Amino acid sequence: MDWPLFAIFVVTAFAAGSTGAFFSPGTWYERLSKPVWTPPNWLFPMAWFVLYLSMAYAAMRIAISGHPEMSHALAIWGLQIVFNTLWSPVFFGLHRLFPALIVLFGMWASVLAMVIAFWRVDPVAGALVAPYLVWTSYAFALNFSIWRRNPGAAQMAGA
Amino acid sequence: MDWPLFAIFVVTAFAAGSTGAFFSPGTWYERLSKPVWTPPNWLFPMAWFVLYLSMAYAAMRIAISGHPEMSHALAIWGLQIVFNTLWSPVFFGLHRLFPALIVLFGMWASVLAMVIAFWRVDPVAGALVAPYLVWTSYAFALNFSIWRRNPGAAQMAGA
Repeated sequence: MDWPLFAIFVVTAFAAGSTGAFFSPGTWYERLSKPVWTPPNWLFPMAWFVLYLSMAYAAMRIAISGHPEMSHALAIWGLQIVFNTLWSPVFFGLHRLFPALIVLFGMWASVLAMVIAFWRVDPVAGALVAPYLVWTSYAFALNFSIWRRNPGAAQMAGA
Repeated sequence: MDWPLFAIFVVTAFAAGSTGAFFSPGTWYERLSKPVWTPPNWLFPMAWFVLYLSMAYAAMRIAISGHPEMSHALAIWGLQIVFNTLWSPVFFGLHRLFPALIVLFGMWASVLAMVIAFWRVDPVAGALVAPYLVWTSYAFALNFSIWRRNPGAAQMAGA
């Protein structure tokens, strides 16, 4: 356990997650047509809290591994966390469902690459970020469904 | 030169920079009271293009260095690029000048830490990200000045 490194990754993950507080679901999101399998709003912050902590701990494990592919895995960590930061402003801030879907595809692909890269360096770290891939796949399906159901979402009123 | 690693860092940097396209200066920004030393709008994308390329190349140099502090330096790279992604949505998206200033302070502090960490691993990489620290200091002063000059900015009209 390297606490200073873990602290940097935790701050990074929660700085990314702060977009969820800056750009939160409001009346606009409430009014969207959503599929029946949409999770309740309270589930999102809980899920993200667990996912951010586990991805930060996994990144710390990679960073202290000394494995030859460590740098590559850490580079992909940086890529996925930028897409993660980007999604909420585009979806909840701009109300642009299709660009948000593109961002989420980039996030999904980079999370998949991260799971593989982490797994190769340290299977425990790989397993720790696997639920993040499941959640991102689910979020992608949800964003896709909401995009298909709401062709006029960008012009809809509401904060 | 490790092209795949460089490509990951370039995509990460320009994904962060895409917030500048998603959340660009519009009529709201035009109407703000700004100091005389505000740069012209065209300078920002040019400056960022150079800064993103140089920070990506510097990160690649760090990632292939094999230096004992390499992981620490790459972790700080991830932290600063998340703050970088966050600023435009808060400033141009939410029009919230003081929260944007807080984000920019986090970005400035993490860029300073990155310059130091990169310098210790590889002085060339440290020198390559030094202009980014200068630019971020300037941006902080500009955000601070605009915040002091525009107490009602969040309620001002304009996109």
